[in-house]
Amino acid sequence: MTNPDTLLVFDEAVTRAGVEGWIQHLESAGAPTEIYRLGSTLVLPVSDVDLIHRAGPELPAPTYQVLRNSQIWLGRRDLRPAGTEVSFGPTTIGDGSVAVIAGPCAVESPEQTMATAAVVTEHGAVGLRGGVFKPRTSPHSFQGLRWDGLDLLAEARERTGLPVVTEVVDPEHVKRLAGVVDGLQIGARNMQNFALLTAVGQSGLPVVLKRGFGCTVEETLAAAEYLLLEGNDQVVLCERGIRTFEPSARFTLDLTAVALWKQRTHLPVMVDPSHSGGRPELVGPLSLAAVAAGADALIIDVHLQPEQALCDGAQAIRPQQFADLMARLAPLAAGLGRRMSRVA
Amino acid sequence: MTNPDTLLVFDEAVTRAGVEGWIQHLESAGAPTEIYRLGSTLVLPVSDVDLIHRAGPELPAPTYQVLRNSQIWLGRRDLRPAGTEVSFGPTTIGDGSVAVIAGPCAVESPEQTMATAAVVTEHGAVGLRGGVFKPRTSPHSFQGLRWDGLDLLAEARERTGLPVVTEVVDPEHVKRLAGVVDGLQIGARNMQNFALLTAVGQSGLPVVLKRGFGCTVEETLAAAEYLLLEGNDQVVLCERGIRTFEPSARFTLDLTAVALWKQRTHLPVMVDPSHSGGRPELVGPLSLAAVAAGADALIIDVHLQPEQALCDGAQAIRPQQFADLMARLAPLAAGLGRRMSRVA
Amino acid sequence: MTNPDTLLVFDEAVTRAGVEGWIQHLESAGAPTEIYRLGSTLVLPVSDVDLIHRAGPELPAPTYQVLRNSQIWLGRRDLRPAGTEVSFGPTTIGDGSVAVIAGPCAVESPEQTMATAAVVTEHGAVGLRGGVFKPRTSPHSFQGLRWDGLDLLAEARERTGLPVVTEVVDPEHVKRLAGVVDGLQIGARNMQNFALLTAVGQSGLPVVLKRGFGCTVEETLAAAEYLLLEGNDQVVLCERGIRTFEPSARFTLDLTAVALWKQRTHLPVMVDPSHSGGRPELVGPLSLAAVAAGADALIIDVHLQPEQALCDGAQAIRPQQFADLMARLAPLAAGLGRRMSRVA
Amino acid sequence: MTNPDTLLVFDEAVTRAGVEGWIQHLESAGAPTEIYRLGSTLVLPVSDVDLIHRAGPELPAPTYQVLRNSQIWLGRRDLRPAGTEVSFGPTTIGDGSVAVIAGPCAVESPEQTMATAAVVTEHGAVGLRGGVFKPRTSPHSFQGLRWDGLDLLAEARERTGLPVVTEVVDPEHVKRLAGVVDGLQIGARNMQNFALLTAVGQSGLPVVLKRGFGCTVEETLAAAEYLLLEGNDQVVLCERGIRTFEPSARFTLDLTAVALWKQRTHLPVMVDPSHSGGRPELVGPLSLAAVAAGADALIIDVHLQPEQALCDGAQAIRPQQFADLMARLAPLAAGLGRRMSRVA
Repeated sequence: MTNPDTLLVFDEAVTRAGVEGWIQHLESAGAPTEIYRLGSTLVLPVSDVDLIHRAGPELPAPTYQVLRNSQIWLGRRDLRPAGTEVSFGPTTIGDGSVAVIAGPCAVESPEQTMATAAVVTEHGAVGLRGGVFKPRTSPHSFQGLRWDGLDLLAEARERTGLPVVTEVVDPEHVKRLAGVVDGLQIGARNMQNFALLTAVGQSGLPVVLKRGFGCTVEETLAAAEYLLLEGNDQVVLCERGIRTFEPSARFTLDLTAVALWKQRTHLPVMVDPSHSGGRPELVGPLSLAAVAAGADALIIDVHLQPEQALCDGAQAIRPQQFADLMARLAPLAAGLGRRMSRVA
Repeated sequence: MTNPDTLLVFDEAVTRAGVEGWIQHLESAGAPTEIYRLGSTLVLPVSDVDLIHRAGPELPAPTYQVLRNSQIWLGRRDLRPAGTEVSFGPTTIGDGSVAVIAGPCAVESPEQTMATAAVVTEHGAVGLRGGVFKPRTSPHSFQGLRWDGLDLLAEARERTGLPVVTEVVDPEHVKRLAGVVDGLQIGARNMQNFALLTAVGQSGLPVVLKRGFGCTVEETLAAAEYLLLEGNDQVVLCERGIRTFEPSARFTLDLTAVALWKQRTHLPVMVDPSHSGGRPELVGPLSLAAVAAGADALIIDVHLQPEQALCDGAQAIRPQQFADLMARLAPLAAGLGRRMSRVA
Repeated sequence: MTNPDTLLVFDEAVTRAGVEGWIQHLESAGAPTEIYRLGSTLVLPVSDVDLIHRAGPELPAPTYQVLRNSQIWLGRRDLRPAGTEVSFGPTTIGDGSVAVIAGPCAVESPEQTMATAAVVTEHGAVGLRGGVFKPRTSPHSFQGLRWDGLDLLAEARERTGLPVVTEVVDPEHVKRLAGVVDGLQIGARNMQNFALLTAVGQSGLPVVLKRGFGCTVEETLAAAEYLLLEGNDQVVLCERGIRTFEPSARFTLDLTAVALWKQRTHLPVMVDPSHSGGRPELVGPLSLAAVAAGADALIIDVHLQPEQALCDGAQAIRPQQFADLMARLAPLAAGLGRRMSRVA
Repeated sequence: MTNPDTLLVFDEAVTRAGVEGWIQHLESAGAPTEIYRLGSTLVLPVSDVDLIHRAGPELPAPTYQVLRNSQIWLGRRDLRPAGTEVSFGPTTIGDGSVAVIAGPCAVESPEQTMATAAVVTEHGAVGLRGGVFKPRTSPHSFQGLRWDGLDLLAEARERTGLPVVTEVVDPEHVKRLAGVVDGLQIGARNMQNFALLTAVGQSGLPVVLKRGFGCTVEETLAAAEYLLLEGNDQVVLCERGIRTFEPSARFTLDLTAVALWKQRTHLPVMVDPSHSGGRPELVGPLSLAAVAAGADALIIDVHLQPEQALCDGAQAIRPQQFADLMARLAPLAAGLGRRMSRVA
């Protein structure tokens, strides 16, 4: 991108007719036009800055005007300085509160699912997590209950009133999952599966986009750009640990990334302390640190009997540990001038 | 896997009827049986070792008998100690020779494609590479010529007689690509895209499986297992550099991985010095080192005018540099007691 | 260490005569004895457990008895479950409070040193940092004011009443520095400079031991063991970022390490958000996150005019930013049930 | 360095008087002058380029003239394009041949030292390695035979005629070691121990400088600059593996670094396949790959009974494996147009 385009940003206060006026102005001058949508905001890239100066007085002034100086521009913070709020059913992430999503790593059985959902609801979770399609390193490992698990998630939502988020691993599954769940998760191993990103972007459903464990802060923003480009601005970035030389934990949680994202993008940021540390005794301190670093939300594995989990049990915390953590998060949030999210 | 199963391995010398006899023996004892195919070899896992001892004399002895002691077993070297040969059209990888596949990173135009194909053929390449679907970090980058590019690859093959390998990024594309090309490549970003692995495995086409830049030696073997499990043993592992703290090159080429794979798996190993180093002046020394470390094949970006490449031009070597490299590889191969591969 | 020894731990409540009794008991049985000191605690390793059972009733019971099952045992948390308090002059680290040490990366001039010392004191710092011997990657960079700088540090301490910590780079400097400063710092590049560790351990001075940017959590504990072995228990571990593939910040701050150290060792833990992030805008969020993860102390670069700093200016925060950070730390500490440290 | 100086490079062909003329010319113009020595080459940095143009015809033309555009300039390849030859007693490294230095990781006993020295000499090693001061991660591990071991190294040299290289860990040891050995080694953990670098540089002895496992290609060159600045150009850089996320080997050997060093510096390059891989079965392929990547020398751990080694036995190869490796290296070297080094 040798000559950075200027981005004209129009928020809701500008009429659609006004924006159409701009498009006609550009097209009549022979300039190629393409318009992008970021929620109710419209973004119009203009490469010839003279055309902006030559716009007639009848054209509405854009709300913002910024330079497109990198591969990442729909996600740039200055395109929406107040930040994006993402709504998973009744739960909002990105409004300044601290939102905790919890549940089992994998949906295993009706009993486990309903009991876990009940207990995390009781202690203040505002969303349910639960994997039904599990992307496993080896084909010989448990791959999830698949569509059977989806019914259990639907039932858990009905019982608790909490919105449900689950991982999607195949573009062909998007539509069917979207008919049931409140949000989709793209796993770390699929962060650069661009066919999947495009399909999920088109679904319009809220998305938790997990950072690949070998991918950079900027590459995660670029992956989000695939979702935003489809007109879907309901995207939460999720830090879940990166690969480093340190062997004492499963991954190294990168809270510098959280701080950088909060400064660079308008998208809210989530942290997964469970998959990062890979040990229950790390979930507490990593959760507190993540919120202090600026994370809008946490996603936490809870299991009634971690030692019997079919998937990643080693890292799940028990209901009592979850209750203790929630009791420590509330005063921390207050100390930061924030509050815990509650289901509307 | 608490009790490691025993794997009964039957090669071609054992009749299919003999193997059926074993299956009947196990089933009549109430043991669950599932049979796996590795080329013409059949693999029968048995969990109760007593059933093996109680087999009657009419049952043929298995060719090998090994323990299934990890998540990786279809790819284990001791299942096929002589190693696997993978055939891309007339070219064989894994027969002890040094095979060089070359071509442009991306197919850009008819002229560029035909000229590059001609020049790499002239200097001894035994396969053509060329991307038509390019997985790019940003959606705003050149994404490849897509299906138009496929026609160009087909034409290049016709003109040169060399087999063609191209990257596949979407499970839905597998069938159409398989109708044209000689081999598919799964890129580093998709190494753990299990939906794609399964679709490619089912195609039966030879596959180059690139190691994810944040994935381990063992995880690459586990990803190959997804392909093998579909009955497709035509798999080449490809090392193309991993992410480390070192900023002087695009990635750090991990030749320890090549040595480990040659010891642990029967699958042949390829190295991509172009994407690893990200600089033309590194292609030569990394190619020589890769072959000395035991690599069966190299895959090299060649571009007539690297400074005008639409994708990753910074790393491509020019035709003359390619010719020089091939001239250095031949005596190196001889020094290792090997020879350069030639198209049959 | 095939047969783990038993460690008999005697705290102050046990008389020295009693411990001598144990030594005589062991020696009379022909067992080799060596006694280690951890502050006022004495540790006696015993390899033959029978000798413990055969001890007469006149021998005092040890306060604790633990197994020596790794290379790290003097630093193990269970040797002193209440944790170690480290005193830099009037300032205590490890008593549950949040201590902030601040000052310039390098002592550059009298004016800069006195003005910075005054301003960080005013805003609540409880210790002064300032480098006079700077270990620089290149010999052609500014290497510090050396002994001239030491006089400035001494004067700054006199004016502010704050204890002073400075880095030591050469075993030969230890004695002269120890005559002036309140604490020594061993830099990341010297964490495994065992000659330096031994000399600093013998000085008896409090030490900030920075983790090497390529070293693990356990290796840092092993390096501390060199200090402890000299009878010096006044050791603070300092996390300052590790090398990873992520290029957006200078280093990746590893707060998982902080959580692990708080669980594994009795030594207090410090975090350096300045050298880790390498950018002033990261100092705030990383400081908050570090304290929430459990850090006992922070060490922060402050410069009056970062753009004119002779060393690492890019990362220093200005006095006003430091004041803002201190104002945010106090309520955070309260939210964690802690308080800010104050000079006694 | 805002305005890059020009470096005037004078080789032996220029008289010392001529160079003095240049110095007087610069000083008479009030320019600060400092002269650096690189073997018999003299280097004179000049910041005001006009002074070069105003030099009278009586002043000799410099052999080269290059810009000082980075922190690394005494080591830059263009200061000595033909490369530096480093002489360890009768053995030369950097003359195009392949030199193999071998021996035990640590000197343990007279029998082990003499027997190992004899066997590696027999199979073509041109230098002996053997550690007497061992920098160990934990103070509770075997630290080497210290000065007793030095006598054994001296005896081994006498018996075999091979030059001896040993690691130095303390600046105070340099002189005493220098009186006995032919070369000093600075270990990976001390690569940025600048007090040690300076002391070793001043000794004038040939040095093997090992890359820190968390340090970059450029930082290694900067560390070498500390040695060169003392007028000691007898420096060999040694790649011995870096820390990465890959757990299958002890370290990840970075042969890209070898290729980069061969292009960027005139100093010869060595590779340590033993400490890098940490497994005997990796020594062979990594050695071959290192030489193919351009390494001038290898340094290899050999032990008569690896399972009884006091230090790092897991990685040592046995005498027969060493003989086999040497037999494979010779034809490889020939294939690269090189030859094996022989003791003069």
